[in-house]
Amino acid sequence: MRTKAQYMERLGKMRHNLYTNGEKIGRLDERQEGAINVMGLTFDAVWDPETKDICTATSHITGETINRFNHIHQSAEDLHKKQDMTRTLCNKVGQCIQRCMGIDAANAVHAVSYEAQKSPKAKTAYHENWLKWLERFQKEDLVASCAQTDVKGERLKRPAQQTDPDMYVHVVEERSDGIVVRGSKVHISEASISDEILVVPNRALKKGEEEYALCFAVPSDYEGVKQVVHYHNTRKRDHFDNGKNFGYSDSYVIFDDCFIPWERVFLCGETQHGGVAALLFALFHRHSYSGCKPAMLDYVIGLAGMAAEINGIEKTPHVREMLSELIMTGELGYAAGYTASDLGKAEVYMPGMGFVPYGPGSYIPNSIYCNVGRCLSGEAVFHEQEILCNIAGGLPATFPYENDLKNPETRALLEKYITRNPNIAIEDQIKFWLNFIDFGLSGSAGSMLYGAYHGGGSPIMEQIAITTQYDIESKKDIVRDLAGMTPRKKK
Amino acid sequence: MRTKAQYMERLGKMRHNLYTNGEKIGRLDERQEGAINVMGLTFDAVWDPETKDICTATSHITGETINRFNHIHQSAEDLHKKQDMTRTLCNKVGQCIQRCMGIDAANAVHAVSYEAQKSPKAKTAYHENWLKWLERFQKEDLVASCAQTDVKGERLKRPAQQTDPDMYVHVVEERSDGIVVRGSKVHISEASISDEILVVPNRALKKGEEEYALCFAVPSDYEGVKQVVHYHNTRKRDHFDNGKNFGYSDSYVIFDDCFIPWERVFLCGETQHGGVAALLFALFHRHSYSGCKPAMLDYVIGLAGMAAEINGIEKTPHVREMLSELIMTGELGYAAGYTASDLGKAEVYMPGMGFVPYGPGSYIPNSIYCNVGRCLSGEAVFHEQEILCNIAGGLPATFPYENDLKNPETRALLEKYITRNPNIAIEDQIKFWLNFIDFGLSGSAGSMLYGAYHGGGSPIMEQIAITTQYDIESKKDIVRDLAGMTPRKKK
Amino acid sequence: MRTKAQYMERLGKMRHNLYTNGEKIGRLDERQEGAINVMGLTFDAVWDPETKDICTATSHITGETINRFNHIHQSAEDLHKKQDMTRTLCNKVGQCIQRCMGIDAANAVHAVSYEAQKSPKAKTAYHENWLKWLERFQKEDLVASCAQTDVKGERLKRPAQQTDPDMYVHVVEERSDGIVVRGSKVHISEASISDEILVVPNRALKKGEEEYALCFAVPSDYEGVKQVVHYHNTRKRDHFDNGKNFGYSDSYVIFDDCFIPWERVFLCGETQHGGVAALLFALFHRHSYSGCKPAMLDYVIGLAGMAAEINGIEKTPHVREMLSELIMTGELGYAAGYTASDLGKAEVYMPGMGFVPYGPGSYIPNSIYCNVGRCLSGEAVFHEQEILCNIAGGLPATFPYENDLKNPETRALLEKYITRNPNIAIEDQIKFWLNFIDFGLSGSAGSMLYGAYHGGGSPIMEQIAITTQYDIESKKDIVRDLAGMTPRKKK
Amino acid sequence: MRTKAQYMERLGKMRHNLYTNGEKIGRLDERQEGAINVMGLTFDAVWDPETKDICTATSHITGETINRFNHIHQSAEDLHKKQDMTRTLCNKVGQCIQRCMGIDAANAVHAVSYEAQKSPKAKTAYHENWLKWLERFQKEDLVASCAQTDVKGERLKRPAQQTDPDMYVHVVEERSDGIVVRGSKVHISEASISDEILVVPNRALKKGEEEYALCFAVPSDYEGVKQVVHYHNTRKRDHFDNGKNFGYSDSYVIFDDCFIPWERVFLCGETQHGGVAALLFALFHRHSYSGCKPAMLDYVIGLAGMAAEINGIEKTPHVREMLSELIMTGELGYAAGYTASDLGKAEVYMPGMGFVPYGPGSYIPNSIYCNVGRCLSGEAVFHEQEILCNIAGGLPATFPYENDLKNPETRALLEKYITRNPNIAIEDQIKFWLNFIDFGLSGSAGSMLYGAYHGGGSPIMEQIAITTQYDIESKKDIVRDLAGMTPRKKK
Repeated sequence: MRTKAQYMERLGKMRHNLYTNGEKIGRLDERQEGAINVMGLTFDAVWDPETKDICTATSHITGETINRFNHIHQSAEDLHKKQDMTRTLCNKVGQCIQRCMGIDAANAVHAVSYEAQKSPKAKTAYHENWLKWLERFQKEDLVASCAQTDVKGERLKRPAQQTDPDMYVHVVEERSDGIVVRGSKVHISEASISDEILVVPNRALKKGEEEYALCFAVPSDYEGVKQVVHYHNTRKRDHFDNGKNFGYSDSYVIFDDCFIPWERVFLCGETQHGGVAALLFALFHRHSYSGCKPAMLDYVIGLAGMAAEINGIEKTPHVREMLSELIMTGELGYAAGYTASDLGKAEVYMPGMGFVPYGPGSYIPNSIYCNVGRCLSGEAVFHEQEILCNIAGGLPATFPYENDLKNPETRALLEKYITRNPNIAIEDQIKFWLNFIDFGLSGSAGSMLYGAYHGGGSPIMEQIAITTQYDIESKKDIVRDLAGMTPRKKK
Repeated sequence: MRTKAQYMERLGKMRHNLYTNGEKIGRLDERQEGAINVMGLTFDAVWDPETKDICTATSHITGETINRFNHIHQSAEDLHKKQDMTRTLCNKVGQCIQRCMGIDAANAVHAVSYEAQKSPKAKTAYHENWLKWLERFQKEDLVASCAQTDVKGERLKRPAQQTDPDMYVHVVEERSDGIVVRGSKVHISEASISDEILVVPNRALKKGEEEYALCFAVPSDYEGVKQVVHYHNTRKRDHFDNGKNFGYSDSYVIFDDCFIPWERVFLCGETQHGGVAALLFALFHRHSYSGCKPAMLDYVIGLAGMAAEINGIEKTPHVREMLSELIMTGELGYAAGYTASDLGKAEVYMPGMGFVPYGPGSYIPNSIYCNVGRCLSGEAVFHEQEILCNIAGGLPATFPYENDLKNPETRALLEKYITRNPNIAIEDQIKFWLNFIDFGLSGSAGSMLYGAYHGGGSPIMEQIAITTQYDIESKKDIVRDLAGMTPRKKK
Repeated sequence: MRTKAQYMERLGKMRHNLYTNGEKIGRLDERQEGAINVMGLTFDAVWDPETKDICTATSHITGETINRFNHIHQSAEDLHKKQDMTRTLCNKVGQCIQRCMGIDAANAVHAVSYEAQKSPKAKTAYHENWLKWLERFQKEDLVASCAQTDVKGERLKRPAQQTDPDMYVHVVEERSDGIVVRGSKVHISEASISDEILVVPNRALKKGEEEYALCFAVPSDYEGVKQVVHYHNTRKRDHFDNGKNFGYSDSYVIFDDCFIPWERVFLCGETQHGGVAALLFALFHRHSYSGCKPAMLDYVIGLAGMAAEINGIEKTPHVREMLSELIMTGELGYAAGYTASDLGKAEVYMPGMGFVPYGPGSYIPNSIYCNVGRCLSGEAVFHEQEILCNIAGGLPATFPYENDLKNPETRALLEKYITRNPNIAIEDQIKFWLNFIDFGLSGSAGSMLYGAYHGGGSPIMEQIAITTQYDIESKKDIVRDLAGMTPRKKK
Repeated sequence: MRTKAQYMERLGKMRHNLYTNGEKIGRLDERQEGAINVMGLTFDAVWDPETKDICTATSHITGETINRFNHIHQSAEDLHKKQDMTRTLCNKVGQCIQRCMGIDAANAVHAVSYEAQKSPKAKTAYHENWLKWLERFQKEDLVASCAQTDVKGERLKRPAQQTDPDMYVHVVEERSDGIVVRGSKVHISEASISDEILVVPNRALKKGEEEYALCFAVPSDYEGVKQVVHYHNTRKRDHFDNGKNFGYSDSYVIFDDCFIPWERVFLCGETQHGGVAALLFALFHRHSYSGCKPAMLDYVIGLAGMAAEINGIEKTPHVREMLSELIMTGELGYAAGYTASDLGKAEVYMPGMGFVPYGPGSYIPNSIYCNVGRCLSGEAVFHEQEILCNIAGGLPATFPYENDLKNPETRALLEKYITRNPNIAIEDQIKFWLNFIDFGLSGSAGSMLYGAYHGGGSPIMEQIAITTQYDIESKKDIVRDLAGMTPRKKK
């Protein structure tokens, strides 16, 4: 397992293919620091006695101890630990811990490549290719990002119906030694700080859409790949330093007629498995949300509780009601993930067929519980901001600039008139509100909200997953029985 | 274990102390039938191979196989099975299965009497008395109802401050051989069809309120006890019989200076344990809601799905959205209970102290998860009715009377103009809508909603439980750390 | 103008064509009483000095003073008065006042028949026929119900696509002296106590659906018309009489190949005007909701306030929050209607064309404001019940039967244990809860909710009306301007 | 009436008392530009034929034509015009038009000073002082900001109970020639660009709080006044200029033992009138919200509609539902203000007394309608952001930097992969999203939301206003009548 230093050393050697604000930059550019510090924590955590246990695992292919973020789940226990690792680490950074993309994509491709290889028309030994990639991934303790979201262009048209056929990443040429791909995956978290990029399809696919049924991996500085990167770093402090520097990035990952050799291809043309790959990544990722969203709610509860304490309203009924609502959202989200982990198995739910074995035995969390949890907590984020706003009052919106808080002509007056609670040190009150502002009223607050709402699938996607995967007919049977109706003919 | 017939036989012999609609009636009066049929199912279920496993348990005091409704939880597995038993049986009746009151009260008193007996001022051997009662309860396979809800009078006054001191059940005289109690427990489900009534306090108590800290049991036809009973039976069908006859009752259980011998007293005067008894019964009962509320949602999902099918709108986006919401409520409620079961232990959470051992080792589900689940699903019930109304349209509100559906002058015309979906037999459509009306638009529909909303504790009670039992300070620590504030001084 | 007695005398002479519960009954059957008492109030009100002014109007065709319920709006003032008359009268009965159906349908047909008569293919002199009918309607002070809602059968199919073509009322034969119609209008309020039935289309219509573009009037006991009637009366009191007997009815109005002479036909085949007729009746009726829904909220606020007073929680923050919410719903609904009245004119909004003159100069309220008001208050009704439940607690769900409250063996005990507020007479507390139960927990409570939710158009219908009639493009222009985008090309 | 140039010329001459980011700056500093441009529009509008009519008025004291923002309402028509002026001008800037503070405070002080002068203990001729100030205010066409919000310190303590007595602005010394005041008014919009600051109390006051019952005016660069200013300007564009430069500022307005001569004092010590002043400013300001909030919704509807058009989902049901919700919020808010204007009169509602004449005859909008409108639209703002996020998808959160959109190495690729709708020019799509980001995801978006939520009174303040000013007893009378209860004894 690597250290943060080793991780950074490797980043430093990568080809420059990051574009931002009109420049081409290297991986160790200072704008990358916030994100690198967050990711660095996933390396530090395996050496920290407090987190070592939940952050490491035993590889089922090599038997070696590996970073859990590179592990293929072998049991319900693994799913529980992944959920708890995510919550624990997110609590240390107050945001997305970022490395879940890799574990979620790897677990999806692991199962899909296994099934797809059975296909008589398989273009290469998908699962064998995958296992080779996976072994290096685990051994070298690499960071993978997952590139799933396509541009999607005209939203009501399918991939092959688009005016511009490149609106979804697809194969434009098939060669004996590999394939040429074109398109762009967008909003790709941490691609700028990852070693590898794992590409999976974005949606269910039909016959005639074979070129879009595509899983592969490339190094993130690969020839033919350009990343246009957006950074979300909190503003540097002039005076009231919090001793942290956390942030994140996302990329337009552009495949500009990029050649992929067969050994890096894990699916190519099997439309049904392509759809499953899309679903499974989403499923594993929604399971990750059962760790990170409760962690974000832990933070929001802390912010709300502290704002209420400073404002002296912690015990009022309307604050209690709002705190209770935040706790409900967080813990219902956690309970959904907990149940999904506990009911995990090496099977997937197929509408009309029920649960069927899928993949080589690796564990898949229960889909319904993953989806109901993600949907609840994803939909709640704007309301959480409303609660913070309600409790905080207007203070954060007009908070003085740090330099005014230090200017001798205004400092004493401002400290006097910022004070709400005379029992808390003014320096602590100031630091609190600056942190509160970073979280809720800064330039990156909006992006974070959009990520929390749409990341891992917009609420409407979970609704669709829930209703298509739930056995509604069996609930109608309850009604048929109680109403005295003719029983359903079982097939 | 008894059969339904044996259960009824015993009911038939009881003293007449039920008052309803101006009459005094016996236990086998026809108004009692609906409720007895529901309760009877809890006896039948232990003989049914399909439900036998989850509906029986091994008594930890006698080692005998007993009805699970009379069992003291010995493990997380027991808690899981109780949750699943409740969901399964409620699905058979489309309403509350009623017998959970006994198991929930018994588990609360089991732990509380054990702790209270340690008190140097204990007035009798509470736990020994309790174990004797429990052994008979299990051996004779009795049905117990739980009497918790007091009249409460002026809501913002404490028990001892009331204009009328009898607004909470209390001891009015202490004798050498027992105590005399006065007051009324109200809205007591199934008291009219139970063998025993277990009485527990209704709220946290302070010094000076000793007379209200009271747990005891009486036979439900006991001298000095009057029950004024309200019945909630569905209307009898004239023509379109569904072959079911289910209902429920609730009683004003009035203790009119009723003498209780010491051997039936399990707590008397220990105010702190009285508060715990109130909390623990509520906790166990909210755990029951993680079984019955998902079951009710199973039924509601079935009603909504069937109404949508008949109206031909099953695939429209707004119906999908509503079905998804119903599924979310049900399964998040279930997941909360599942997690509460899995994290169950022989400890209770004490604000300021964290988890502390409590009781003789019997298992208590996690309080936070029980409360967030109950609060979510309890608050949702009116919205569920709105969804049913939205999907059904006006049809159920103006549905023809059964006799018009049979009258030769109107029958053919009505059958023609009731039809929405030509592919479903008209008889089935009629039976469906009659069942739908029973559930949502009948005289008992409103009562059922009130029970689902307030039973087991109104939403505001769960909010209070959640915020007082959640470790909000530890969430503020996350903020203190991220904001760079002074760390909290740990005690 | 008639009196209630004259109105009833005429009802007594009508042909028996009402079917209910397997019987054929006369208009003065006791089941009709509740509804007749409500309607009777609209006759009494014109003689009552307090209500005379808003309940009468001057006919624009005869110049005579008439009951406002039979008036064609000639000014914004008329619209204001109709809204206020509706609120005032509904407050006297605590439910729908029922006669708005007639005024709303009459105003719609008045404008539509005028426009349709201009059509070169008009089959008869629609507007002249109409004016003759109207004059008698006003002179004889008749009650009209409006029959709009069709069965609709398979919901996603248009009228002409239905498996059974009679799912919408339509012309099955055209003769020289009139037309023959077949089909059923369902959920028709007050048809059983009305003198006349006005029939209007239920939806927008296309070419090829001419037989469904149909407006006409028949006496409600007309040959060929059968009514299957459902009654919604509150339960008769045994002891605690409130001195009221109010209720309502609705009918399946079945046209069993019913012949309509041309002089009673106001539209026949003009599909575009048929759609406008559907829209206009809905519009006028949503305007009525801006009177009746605030009235219902007045009642709900009173119930909530009184329940809070009895429970002693009137000043608690959560009750204040709920009362505030109820007031908001009621008064926003009223304000929407007020604005719609004030902005009324003799024009309708045509998507893509804006406001265009329509009809002979009679006033039409603003559609957007009518729709936003109805949508808000219609969607709120289940939540209102939740608020009542929240404030009342479990008491209404298990309230003793009247006979138990009088039985000497239980009376004193029950009076003691029902008491919440020692400062309010127990008889008043009992009467209050019985009224509360009638409103929220009785058999007719569900039907009333369904009516409030769907009557006048389900919330989704208002959403459609709002989005199709709102000038969204002009709002995009604001964005185009602020964003510096290319201005929209104006046509 | 002045021009924008004259307005700016005067600003340029003012004393430097603005502190920001550690500097002391002049009124024409470039950070002030955004706000000045917005305010400038209120001067331009009186010369623009399109807006001249609603933006001017005839002074009731001089008979001259004045800017409506400096007018005292003389009729319901004036209230209507003020509402419409606000909506119209806000639509030109896509934000608060800022000058309403002056008109709202002036109308409040106009009435209050009139009533307070009648007090036998009045310390000076309040209303005469006021009229002198007002005449100059109108003649010189000045801009006034209103300073109401106090620091409030420990929220559950009253002004005189605070640990630091300066948490509310108060009189610290009374002299023969005037008073000395100390304290800070916070979050004061446009104070940095106003000519005058009008100070009014922040809350209801009791006996013993006389020093806090205080209305006065000072020039905004007055000796003894320091402003610490926060700016909310949109980011300057590098390439995709929208040709606008709008923004706003708010100040901590600090009175550091500031002397106020009697002729500028309009209330000093009359606690009851102090409370009315607080209420009346809030009331007039909530009336302003019935113009600005619908205007903001016009903008939000435009953003949502355009985002939906670009994403190609404008006709989908879930987008229609969301657009309908936005329209409802905006138009119900407008209707509430419209009704409040139309029912305006020279009276205020006093709980327990009903409407009583107040002030010298100037018009006051109806309080209930102002409050229900503000409450609805204020509470909705976070949900509006959720809707925008839902419709936009992830695009705005990761949008490329302008320089990347111009960099030859990335430009063509980005233009290709940003495109959603091939029928809209890419330059327009880019400008749209940049504007969308400014509105919802920028540093100032959060502040704007906080302002929209709390400005003019947080939702809880409207709840309190609504429930204390609504005649709930009269609604209970409806229940008393319908339930057959004893009628209320009228006083």
